[in-house]
Amino acid sequence: MIPRYSRPEMTKIWEPENRFRIWFEIEAHACDALAEIGVIPKDSAKIIWAKGDIPYTPERSARIDEIEAVTKHDVIAFLTELAEHIGPESRFVHQGMTSSDVLDTCLAVQLTQAADILLADMDRLLAALEKRAFEYKDLPCMGRSHGIHAEPVTMGLKFATFHAEFQRNRRRLKSAREDIATCAISGAVGTFANIDPRVEEHVAAKLGLKPEPVSTQVIPRDRHAQFFATLGVIASSIEHVAIEIRHLQRTEVREAEEYFSPGQKGSSAMPHKRNPVLTENLTGLARLVRGMVVPALENVALWHERDISHSSVERMIGPDATVTLDFALNRLSGVIEKLVVYPDAVERNLNQLGGLVFSQRVLLGLTQAGMSREDSYKAVQRNAMRVWQEGANFLDLLKADTEVVALIPAKALEELFDLGYHTKHVDTIFKRVFGRA
Amino acid sequence: MIPRYSRPEMTKIWEPENRFRIWFEIEAHACDALAEIGVIPKDSAKIIWAKGDIPYTPERSARIDEIEAVTKHDVIAFLTELAEHIGPESRFVHQGMTSSDVLDTCLAVQLTQAADILLADMDRLLAALEKRAFEYKDLPCMGRSHGIHAEPVTMGLKFATFHAEFQRNRRRLKSAREDIATCAISGAVGTFANIDPRVEEHVAAKLGLKPEPVSTQVIPRDRHAQFFATLGVIASSIEHVAIEIRHLQRTEVREAEEYFSPGQKGSSAMPHKRNPVLTENLTGLARLVRGMVVPALENVALWHERDISHSSVERMIGPDATVTLDFALNRLSGVIEKLVVYPDAVERNLNQLGGLVFSQRVLLGLTQAGMSREDSYKAVQRNAMRVWQEGANFLDLLKADTEVVALIPAKALEELFDLGYHTKHVDTIFKRVFGRA
Amino acid sequence: MIPRYSRPEMTKIWEPENRFRIWFEIEAHACDALAEIGVIPKDSAKIIWAKGDIPYTPERSARIDEIEAVTKHDVIAFLTELAEHIGPESRFVHQGMTSSDVLDTCLAVQLTQAADILLADMDRLLAALEKRAFEYKDLPCMGRSHGIHAEPVTMGLKFATFHAEFQRNRRRLKSAREDIATCAISGAVGTFANIDPRVEEHVAAKLGLKPEPVSTQVIPRDRHAQFFATLGVIASSIEHVAIEIRHLQRTEVREAEEYFSPGQKGSSAMPHKRNPVLTENLTGLARLVRGMVVPALENVALWHERDISHSSVERMIGPDATVTLDFALNRLSGVIEKLVVYPDAVERNLNQLGGLVFSQRVLLGLTQAGMSREDSYKAVQRNAMRVWQEGANFLDLLKADTEVVALIPAKALEELFDLGYHTKHVDTIFKRVFGRA
Amino acid sequence: MIPRYSRPEMTKIWEPENRFRIWFEIEAHACDALAEIGVIPKDSAKIIWAKGDIPYTPERSARIDEIEAVTKHDVIAFLTELAEHIGPESRFVHQGMTSSDVLDTCLAVQLTQAADILLADMDRLLAALEKRAFEYKDLPCMGRSHGIHAEPVTMGLKFATFHAEFQRNRRRLKSAREDIATCAISGAVGTFANIDPRVEEHVAAKLGLKPEPVSTQVIPRDRHAQFFATLGVIASSIEHVAIEIRHLQRTEVREAEEYFSPGQKGSSAMPHKRNPVLTENLTGLARLVRGMVVPALENVALWHERDISHSSVERMIGPDATVTLDFALNRLSGVIEKLVVYPDAVERNLNQLGGLVFSQRVLLGLTQAGMSREDSYKAVQRNAMRVWQEGANFLDLLKADTEVVALIPAKALEELFDLGYHTKHVDTIFKRVFGRA
Repeated sequence: MIPRYSRPEMTKIWEPENRFRIWFEIEAHACDALAEIGVIPKDSAKIIWAKGDIPYTPERSARIDEIEAVTKHDVIAFLTELAEHIGPESRFVHQGMTSSDVLDTCLAVQLTQAADILLADMDRLLAALEKRAFEYKDLPCMGRSHGIHAEPVTMGLKFATFHAEFQRNRRRLKSAREDIATCAISGAVGTFANIDPRVEEHVAAKLGLKPEPVSTQVIPRDRHAQFFATLGVIASSIEHVAIEIRHLQRTEVREAEEYFSPGQKGSSAMPHKRNPVLTENLTGLARLVRGMVVPALENVALWHERDISHSSVERMIGPDATVTLDFALNRLSGVIEKLVVYPDAVERNLNQLGGLVFSQRVLLGLTQAGMSREDSYKAVQRNAMRVWQEGANFLDLLKADTEVVALIPAKALEELFDLGYHTKHVDTIFKRVFGRA
Repeated sequence: MIPRYSRPEMTKIWEPENRFRIWFEIEAHACDALAEIGVIPKDSAKIIWAKGDIPYTPERSARIDEIEAVTKHDVIAFLTELAEHIGPESRFVHQGMTSSDVLDTCLAVQLTQAADILLADMDRLLAALEKRAFEYKDLPCMGRSHGIHAEPVTMGLKFATFHAEFQRNRRRLKSAREDIATCAISGAVGTFANIDPRVEEHVAAKLGLKPEPVSTQVIPRDRHAQFFATLGVIASSIEHVAIEIRHLQRTEVREAEEYFSPGQKGSSAMPHKRNPVLTENLTGLARLVRGMVVPALENVALWHERDISHSSVERMIGPDATVTLDFALNRLSGVIEKLVVYPDAVERNLNQLGGLVFSQRVLLGLTQAGMSREDSYKAVQRNAMRVWQEGANFLDLLKADTEVVALIPAKALEELFDLGYHTKHVDTIFKRVFGRA
Repeated sequence: MIPRYSRPEMTKIWEPENRFRIWFEIEAHACDALAEIGVIPKDSAKIIWAKGDIPYTPERSARIDEIEAVTKHDVIAFLTELAEHIGPESRFVHQGMTSSDVLDTCLAVQLTQAADILLADMDRLLAALEKRAFEYKDLPCMGRSHGIHAEPVTMGLKFATFHAEFQRNRRRLKSAREDIATCAISGAVGTFANIDPRVEEHVAAKLGLKPEPVSTQVIPRDRHAQFFATLGVIASSIEHVAIEIRHLQRTEVREAEEYFSPGQKGSSAMPHKRNPVLTENLTGLARLVRGMVVPALENVALWHERDISHSSVERMIGPDATVTLDFALNRLSGVIEKLVVYPDAVERNLNQLGGLVFSQRVLLGLTQAGMSREDSYKAVQRNAMRVWQEGANFLDLLKADTEVVALIPAKALEELFDLGYHTKHVDTIFKRVFGRA
Repeated sequence: MIPRYSRPEMTKIWEPENRFRIWFEIEAHACDALAEIGVIPKDSAKIIWAKGDIPYTPERSARIDEIEAVTKHDVIAFLTELAEHIGPESRFVHQGMTSSDVLDTCLAVQLTQAADILLADMDRLLAALEKRAFEYKDLPCMGRSHGIHAEPVTMGLKFATFHAEFQRNRRRLKSAREDIATCAISGAVGTFANIDPRVEEHVAAKLGLKPEPVSTQVIPRDRHAQFFATLGVIASSIEHVAIEIRHLQRTEVREAEEYFSPGQKGSSAMPHKRNPVLTENLTGLARLVRGMVVPALENVALWHERDISHSSVERMIGPDATVTLDFALNRLSGVIEKLVVYPDAVERNLNQLGGLVFSQRVLLGLTQAGMSREDSYKAVQRNAMRVWQEGANFLDLLKADTEVVALIPAKALEELFDLGYHTKHVDTIFKRVFGRA
């Protein structure tokens, strides 16, 4: 997580002020529940809210840091500073709780906050993809497999494909969000020895979480593993779109281009350059998020009722993965929204091989006209290879092939070279993806 | 995937005979649909089933291999061999389809078959965990954080914790199974140019899949990435349980032990050895499955309408990840089912520190009796440290501490050293996990 | 490791017969040393060689398997079968040794054998790269950064770059080979309690290994981690070359092409296809090998004097990583050796932008003629952008730009559009890489 | 990289002031070389040093940021600010160079600076390990395989093992340092079109680097991949030591303990706790560094003469991996230096099984006395198993076993229970590791 690849909405979640605020809410809600079941006086709970419900400022954070430098314990430092505001009633705060109750529940809140931003990010991206998909729904363009011209698709289909992929990713994240949205207020080893389970239920409800059915000292880390693994999948999908755009912008292809602002410089040395730097950057960011998946998986197998090896990992990848992914999703949305498509180049590439991409249709035409599939393949391939080698026109070659025209006359051959044949089901596909065409 | 870590149920899915059988079904169902919409004669579709619906044997696989050695194309070899059985009607097979239609849909079937076995594996594991959880629900044992004695839990709670974790994993796998259960019969670049979308719908329905809303030449690989990432999470949970058992079996702990059969040898050199080799092995297997997650993530960003870089990865990790995880889940179930628990050792360890683990309760007792939390902590800690250093008895030390007994008389102190206090909510937790206690 | 991506030279290393042969040699050499220092009779050592030095056949392997099915211990099964050949003297075999002495030393031998093949593979690759580098040393071609035309390089430089990279990889592998070439014959926990260190020294010398300075029950796994990490780097370099070729073969670029044999079929559906399937395949294989790095790293932190969690990992990645990398290196060598370069296309692409790639030289020309760098940049960029937008000819535009020609007359401008200017140091670079130009 | 896990020595390398300083030196040294070969005036080069060789302060960094906010190009912003100090001669700065020449050479300097700190860190760690190794060279302690008591070793051997491992890691890092210590000043695509190779040679020599034999626009990333992979191996070795200490500190083992300072609190809730939090933390930090290996490997396969996808990865993992590893190495050194060893507990554990760990010696004794290995094994195992099951004393049981005493009389049996037998070669091993004993 570095400022260059961060947005303030997301970094704020990981700043001390937000963390302390959540800690306070956990403690104060717990006091309410403790008061309700008669463990502490009801008036005390009220005073805790009345005096403690004040904003966490950088000054307060500094004071907490100051105390932590002495106590070497973050939660104790937090409680001590809080007591300075609340006064004597502070002795009722944190009763029967353990630090992990606060830390893990707080992490759950932070990750759900982060997930909500990421879900909104994906909504922006989905909207951009949908808009561009419909804009170019009917623009025929070359479909490529193996980087080699295959058969026509439409530019809109490319966006539709990514839209469907990010619909899935949205669903996955929603599910991963549920996975980490649990609250544990269960004490030192999860037995509720010193705190009633009703406290956990109350705090969970107040924070929009579910009680963790069984915790040890900590919330089990398979939840977080699944969460970060899902971020890794999403990052890989971002790379998927980024690679497509980088390819489309290659000088020899140049069907699309990242928006290049007036005054922008592509290179300090070469004034002619216009580089797809945003999508290249996204490719790198995807690697970073992907690299955080395995550490998160390694965090699952904690020793006995917990060891603290997961903590340093999460202090880094918690912010890093969510901030980087948030930044990447927004950067990608911007790229899609402003992407410049060059229909002329799209058409030029489509025609580059002189109709070679209709080879399957000719093949099928020959078989339908009675030639065996094997012979048809040979007939088409021998002409196709001459296009590659000599740059000849495919249709002309076919017309001059007596075996071919014996079965498909020249006129009929021409009709096989028909883009409409390839795009006739685009609407069907759009309906599947967008519910409309 | 090596025989040593394989079960035949799972390896069978990845054998040529199963693959060819699925390919045949895809082709034959497609013929039915093609016949229904009038593209090929209805009688031909019937003949294709009648003559083609015969078992794939190693002999037939060998014949297909023989043809592939010439054609260098697996699907063409398959179709050629099939034609040898079907005769002239074979020309209607594979009409308008592309190899990936067959390959990707087949992979979807294989992965769902694999997922179904893995789900059954987890059911076995869940049953074993539940049984042992109830068996030891009320056996108090030491809870440890950081590897250090913390406060009492029960042995049953350990199993309950793992049960809850595998319930979640089961849900995740079910969801990942849905993710990869799609069918694509959409032609060379996914446009249905040469095949009607109704064929895809029919084949999907017959194979228990859903049509892929938008495919390119291939089914998008974010689906597979999510699937293998989920297997990585499950593998990490297996490691979680394995590590717990390895710890419990350590010579100095020895609260539980993998079943050691009469005649078994723990070491060729040291006849006294009884090693937790099964759970150690599971730890290694978890690393293997985890290592397959990143390659699966790297497979997402294929170029344009597909490149074939994912193929070699899937040829390896498809079988490797599912076979290894299936083996691991069954090995783990066996370990849990036959795990030997030593209640005497459990109790001995519980008492090892002479009641030190009741330190929190004494701390709370002192604060409730009016001492400040800080002073209480100091009072308890100064006695506790002497137990570590001198091996003294904690209760005796407390009774001799005038500051302590001034607030909590000896008799009352004794009552704080109470296991029941720690286990009183075990039923609550069991109800949450199992729906019963 | 699957046959499709395997070469017999490498798979043979991992077959039981090779493993048993190495085990025998370890045991027999150890007997020689034991005889030399008087622990066992010299005649016995001779008999062990005389009767035991017979080839391991699949029949013998089957017999060993048969015994292992009973004893559940591979080394004991091996020794039992060996005894059947040696007779009574077999009681002197394995004296004071532990299974890991045999297993780990054998793994060291296997990995050095594998490394030697990989080193030879790299020699083949280096030779191929060198040949093609000199062949195309002076063929100017477009240099591209960000996928965008930058400035001219030569095709030979591309091969030289990869040659230098694989020289480094060769050095790294040589170093990693040394890292794993150690022998441990140190007994149950590495103390030599039951076996004299001189035995280890003798066996090490005979097998071309060095004695492990300090082993526990096992050879420390940081050695293997470094080895597999190095394979991961090499795999990534293979991907580097593969990606270059895939790019060069893109339809719109098509400066080079994997050899496409007469009769080959690129696609079952599209007869016109010629796909870079070999380099796509190499991209996937690189992912696989890379995925084995982290499991190898996770193997380092074994518990105390060893746990056996590393074993299952190595049983899989030992063969998988070396076999896959061997296959990939050879496939890559074949691709390079037979790569078809299309000089016409190379030249066409070089000229595609009408000299735009000389923009830096014009920029420098203007600054040398007295214009400020900033103004020069603007002057060049404004003309360059028109080439992108309008497809105009760069040189013509510059000649029509009064500000430009005021400082650099048309004639002088033309001279700046000079390929030789860019290639003048190619010989220098070749001398650095190959020691000759 | 977060302050909690950072040391200022290392973070300073990654601060803007150090980066800008290195950039300045690259530029100024390049000017010297350009002056030497007559491209720019010699006096200008002198002035550039005279006016430019002033410290980079946060104020200057802020000014550069200010400019970058406009130009969106970091190197241009740097050059502009530099020009404000140098005046007109600044037009000779950066002549014929490209941004990557500066950026990549700077990264090489930063990584070598980082490597030098890491090498010093390892020297501290090696010294600590050596000291503790000799301190406990002769303290017999239990050797454990599979977590189960095996045979005696000495506590010093444990430290010696880690010492040998870090000697290897030091060698590996030294080699990886060489790998990334290259300088590229070769222009836009590495052809030296606009800059003489002698400039590169001069700058390289001045900065302690070697010229990169062949660069494209960038220094090839296999170098960095190897560097970060090596850091991953070192991190895994740190985990290795950390896991050992965490095991030794387990409550039931407690042979050693991290230093626990007076006033320290192990837990907010449980005053009795003393947790191995430092080594647990190191376990997590190892995961983090390991997670950065694969992104570094994925950076190798850049497109053509470069794409910029590696940049974001390196902006994060460059600082993160080196800072984290530096912190971890120092934390580990501190742990080793202050580790508290409890010889009483060491001895107690050694005797826990009543001599069971001498089982191999009894086995060998029986075979030497004429019993077959198989029968000997059975005889020893049947007694050993009773120790496990009944807690009986192993020696007593053997003495009561008539088959055993028939071959080894009670007196002789006692002599087999001899620690000295196991430690007799410790000096040999120490000489191998430390060159002295």
